[in-house]
Formats: sequence, C-alpha cells, structure tokens
Amino acid sequence: SRSISLAVIPGDGIGKEVVAQGLKVLSAVLPQDVKLETKQYDLGAQRWHATGETLPDAELEQLKEHDAILLGAIGDPSVPSGVLERGLLLKLRFAFDHYVNLRPSKLFPNTESPLAGRPDIDFVVVREGTEGPYVGNGGSIRTGTPAEVANEVSVNTAYGVERVVRDAYERANARTRKKLTLVHKNNVLVHAGHLWKNLFDKIGEEYPEVTTDYLHVDAATIFLVTDPARFDVIVTDNLFGDILTDLAAAVSGGIGLAASGNVNPTGEFPSMFEPVHGSAPDIAGTGKADPTATVLSVALLLRHLGFEAEAARIEDAVTADLSERADSRTTDEIGDALAVRVAQ
Amino acid sequence: SRSISLAVIPGDGIGKEVVAQGLKVLSAVLPQDVKLETKQYDLGAQRWHATGETLPDAELEQLKEHDAILLGAIGDPSVPSGVLERGLLLKLRFAFDHYVNLRPSKLFPNTESPLAGRPDIDFVVVREGTEGPYVGNGGSIRTGTPAEVANEVSVNTAYGVERVVRDAYERANARTRKKLTLVHKNNVLVHAGHLWKNLFDKIGEEYPEVTTDYLHVDAATIFLVTDPARFDVIVTDNLFGDILTDLAAAVSGGIGLAASGNVNPTGEFPSMFEPVHGSAPDIAGTGKADPTATVLSVALLLRHLGFEAEAARIEDAVTADLSERADSRTTDEIGDALAVRVAQ
Ligand SMILES: CC(C)[C@H](C(=O)O)[C@@H](O)C(=O)O
Ligand SMILES: CC(C)[C@H](C(=O)O)[C@@H](O)C(=O)O
Repeated sequence: SRSISLAVIPGDGIGKEVVAQGLKVLSAVLPQDVKLETKQYDLGAQRWHATGETLPDAELEQLKEHDAILLGAIGDPSVPSGVLERGLLLKLRFAFDHYVNLRPSKLFPNTESPLAGRPDIDFVVVREGTEGPYVGNGGSIRTGTPAEVANEVSVNTAYGVERVVRDAYERANARTRKKLTLVHKNNVLVHAGHLWKNLFDKIGEEYPEVTTDYLHVDAATIFLVTDPARFDVIVTDNLFGDILTDLAAAVSGGIGLAASGNVNPTGEFPSMFEPVHGSAPDIAGTGKADPTATVLSVALLLRHLGFEAEAARIEDAVTADLSERADSRTTDEIGDALAVRVAQ
Repeated sequence: SRSISLAVIPGDGIGKEVVAQGLKVLSAVLPQDVKLETKQYDLGAQRWHATGETLPDAELEQLKEHDAILLGAIGDPSVPSGVLERGLLLKLRFAFDHYVNLRPSKLFPNTESPLAGRPDIDFVVVREGTEGPYVGNGGSIRTGTPAEVANEVSVNTAYGVERVVRDAYERANARTRKKLTLVHKNNVLVHAGHLWKNLFDKIGEEYPEVTTDYLHVDAATIFLVTDPARFDVIVTDNLFGDILTDLAAAVSGGIGLAASGNVNPTGEFPSMFEPVHGSAPDIAGTGKADPTATVLSVALLLRHLGFEAEAARIEDAVTADLSERADSRTTDEIGDALAVRVAQ
C-alpha cells in the first residue's frame, strides 16, 4: 500500500492558518489505502526569537527524509529583513536543489482580475531556483560609511541553466500549445544572458514541436498586462521569475490563488510546495486569509508524487468553489468547503 | 537672448520618425527670441554595420558640448544583442553620469489602459542610472562549454545611492502628495538592499514632510496593477527601475506615451531625453509610430533647461490631443497636430 511522509512547516502569520486547510483537503482527497504521515517543524520567526535558530543542520537532515514538504509562509516584521528568507526559505531551496520553481497562472472563473476584459490566462512559469542573484554571493566594504560599496553577484552556470531549460521544454512539449518563452535581459546582462540564450536555442533543437521566443524582462511585464494569453510556458532566471510570478499572480486573480512548487526533479531531495503569498501579518488571526493558494499547492505536491487523479480533483474543486463564491467565508470555511468537494 | 544647443541622435527604426516630430514640436513651442541649434549624430545600427563603430571618443567629446541630447531609439535585430545597448545607449548614460533616470507615468484621458476601471495614475519613477547590475561588471569562463560559469555583478555605492535618493526626496517634497516609495529586494539582495534602505531612512530624516514606505520589487508589480494610485514617487535601482517603468508605461496608456529623461542634475554633462519605447523595426517606415512619447520627452528636456512654461504647453497639448484622438493619424500628422497646438 502507498504512503506519503510529509514534512509540514506552517511558518509565520497566516502560514499556520492556510497550512491547516491544505492538510484538511489533503486528508480528504487521499484514498483510504494511502497512509499519510505528517510531521510538523517549528521553524520561522517565533523559533528565531526564542532560540536564534533559523534552520539547524539536524532539522535539515530530518526534513531530507520526507517525501515532500508543505510550507505555509515565512517572515515577520519583527525579524530583520533577510534573516528568515536567507536562513530558512532560501536555505531549503538551495540545500534541496529545488532548481525548478514551478508557478502556474490561471484565471479561474468568477475571480477578480485587475485587467479589463478578462483575458484567457493559462500559463506556467518555470523559474530557476538555485542560481542567479539569489546565490548569496554579495558583500559590502566600508559598510555604513559614505564610502560604502555593496555588491551582489549573479552566478549562472551551464549546468544549472541547462537542466532548468530542459525541464521547461519538457513541460512545454507536454502541453497543447507547446510554446516556450525565454525571459532574460541579454542586451544588458550580456554574459548571463548569452549563456541562457545559447542553451535555450541549442536545447530547442531537440524539441522541434515547441515554438519558442525570447523577451526581455521589461517587455515581458508589458505583455503580462496587455496580452497574457500569448504565454504558455515561460522559463527564466531566479530574480526575473520572482518578479514575473508576483505580477502573473496579480493579473490572474490575485496572490491569494497562486500556488508554487520548489521542485527537485531528480527526486534526490524532497520537493517543497508553498503558496506564493507571504505571511501577511496584518491579517493573521482574522480568518481572512484565503487558503486556496495552499490547497492548490497541495495539488502540485500530489501531482509531483504521482497522485494525478487526486491533484486534478483538487483543481476541479477549486474551480467549482470559485465559480460559486460570492461571500465572505473564513479561512476555515473555505477549507471545509474544498474538503467536502474533493471527498465526493 | 537665450539659446539651446541640442544634439540629436535619431538612431534606428522608428527613432528617426519620432525624433522628427519631437523637433517639429520643439521649434513650434519655442519663443522667437530663443535660438535653437541642432546637430544630428549618425549613431546606431547603420553606422555600426558601415564602420563597426558604436560611439567613438571624438563624438562623445562633441556631444559633451551640447546643452542636451534628444535620442530616438537604438537597436536593430541585425546587430547582436548588447552591442548597441552597451556600446552606445548605456555608454552615454554612464559617460554623462545620468544618475537620475526620470520616468513619469500618467494615465491621460481617452487612452487605453489594460486595467479595469481606469485608476488614477500619476507618479514618477526615479530610476538610478549609473550603477546596479548595469555597470557591465560581468564575465564568463569556459564560455560555450558545459562547464561555463557566467557572472554579473551589481555594484552599489553610498555615493551613487545617496545622490539619487536625495533627488527623489526633493521631487517628492515638491509634489502635492509628498510620498516616496523605495523599491528593492532587500530580503534577498541583503547587502545592496541594506545600503539602499539605510540611506533611504537616513536621508528621510531631512524631509519630515515626505511620507515614505518600502516595497519589495515583486510586491511593487502587484500594486502597479491593483492599486497604481498608491504611488507618487518611486525611487529604485537601475534594473528594478527598468522593469517597473515598462510595466508602469503599459498600465498608463502604453509604451507609445512614455517619456524619459536621463538626467545629470549637476549640469556637469548634458542630460539626454528619449522615449521609453524601442526602435520597433516591425513598424518602421509605416507611419504607425506614435511620436507622443518623444514629444513628451521634449517637454522633460525643456523643463530641465528651465523652459517650464513651454514644457507645460507641450503637456497640455498632448492632453488635449489625446482627448480628441479617435482616428488613425500617421506619425507625421500627430506631430503636425501637436505643433499647431503648442504654437497657439
Ligand atoms: C520571500 C522571498 C525570499 C521569496 C523569493 O524572493 O523567492 C518570495 O518572494 C517568493 O517568491 O517565494
Ligand atoms: C535598451 C535597454 C538597454 C534599456 C535599458 O535596459 O535601460 C531600455 O530597456 C530602457 O529602459 O531604456
């Protein structure tokens, strides 16, 4: 009989609240014969305040033993900017080699889009997750003085770019429209840009059915608001992907619906699934958080683990729930409604 | 009697066409007693193909002698990506120390916004122009092999950040709403981010009337489409500014209306004014290019040189022209209409 060993990191703010709903829906959707074991990890702002720890090695080792990780949200204004991001969230993405940061965007029925005319939106961003300006390769001299110099280095390797670009081609090839767009800024960041563009073109030869194009990141933001329907699969660098996926979430119904997977496609390490939104301390505890992004992240998690039918059932439940949504239900009520639907 | 010595770089594609209209309107708006001298510089794709030159030192020296520069657009698909951008456009911005890249966004009447409900948009982005990932401090090893590593270094100095942040505070302080937003990504790019944030906070103490806030660049893109009215003045790094201003242009009527100034506030070097759009080779020669962004860039140029009344007259003419626009006039016809209006 099958089983899932799941690490759960609720984290901060609304993270705890939405993760509870994600687990509720997960339990409801899984067939009886699948054994679900979850283990909660107390990581985030509270832990840091109490012990000064962000992610001790011992816990990193334990996390490694699970099949997957479900994460709520990390971050609190009481913690200096960067401490939890670099010490916990990015540490996990880098330690577990999450080189495919998968972020689908879809405009569900009955959701508010800030765009006039409700364009057709159904694309996925494959954001590189282990390189670029996120490597933590920066520093400053004469810090705090008028002579300070602060550098940040974006590191890009053929090894790292090749694997994520190949993954994106595979995903594009498996979709109906089979279109892949590379987003970079190769007219300014010429070295990194040429590495990306060259590999993109070279690997493309192996996928003759995939149509390709290239956009500078600035131009890509224009198309995301004027013609998002032009996108099918986007592959891009870590930082550009960060920016584009928040914008993509905003135009497709809001950050409350945006799911993501930090995927290690080789299976060497557990993949981690999380809503794109943050810990939203301003609404924590009010029951106003929408757990849908987390529930959709659970769908990505299930698909990653081979539970395709269950993943689809969650996505269908969300579509149905959103179609009928006209109220102001609490976090818990939305979770309940989705759990009921997937169990049917 | 007053005079303006203007360097004109029409550049590539629609650059030539829109610059012609900009000059037409400039001539029409200037009082009789102002002597306008223009000198055209043949720089861009054609020149590069013919001579291999992008911007020879001799011409850089000549350009330095003018009061200001009007630039159309640079770039052509026949030239490898980066050659003209780095060798001409960015070379000018860096050589003439254009540390304030000024990009106003305003939703004019009767323009198409992709946003539902036509929000109130009237803000200005102060984009740093001489540092960040644009410094050209990158390189690669084992280029073209599976072991390639390509780095790009973002360089940020207290000297460079202080002056642009101060300029932004001055601009915010001179506006009605007096609100300044810093955009960065200081939870990931911690060294550069902390330099920006610390100086932003410190200089803010000198401007007690200016309200401030901070947004991560990804969150800023969300607000640009969900609540652009929240912005008054934004100050940000070179690359984030590049991305945000294309998005800002898209939500406020399109890239055909977005003006910009590459300003050297000390006056040591000539400032350069250009539309945000590119050379658009696909519509070059068709008469479809909208010269309005260039005409609005001429207004920024005039304001920079102290011709405030003339700048305002151009902006009023554009507002009036857009209010009545319902046709498909050519580049030339729009230029003519604006020239007639400003001359009145
Ligand atoms: C919190 C932050 C470090 C993170 C990122 O920049 O990747 C977030 O914005 C995201 O998109 O998951
Ligand atoms: C052409 C390119 C180098 C330039 C930039 O990136 O600054 C352009 O996008 C702009 O915004 O003026």
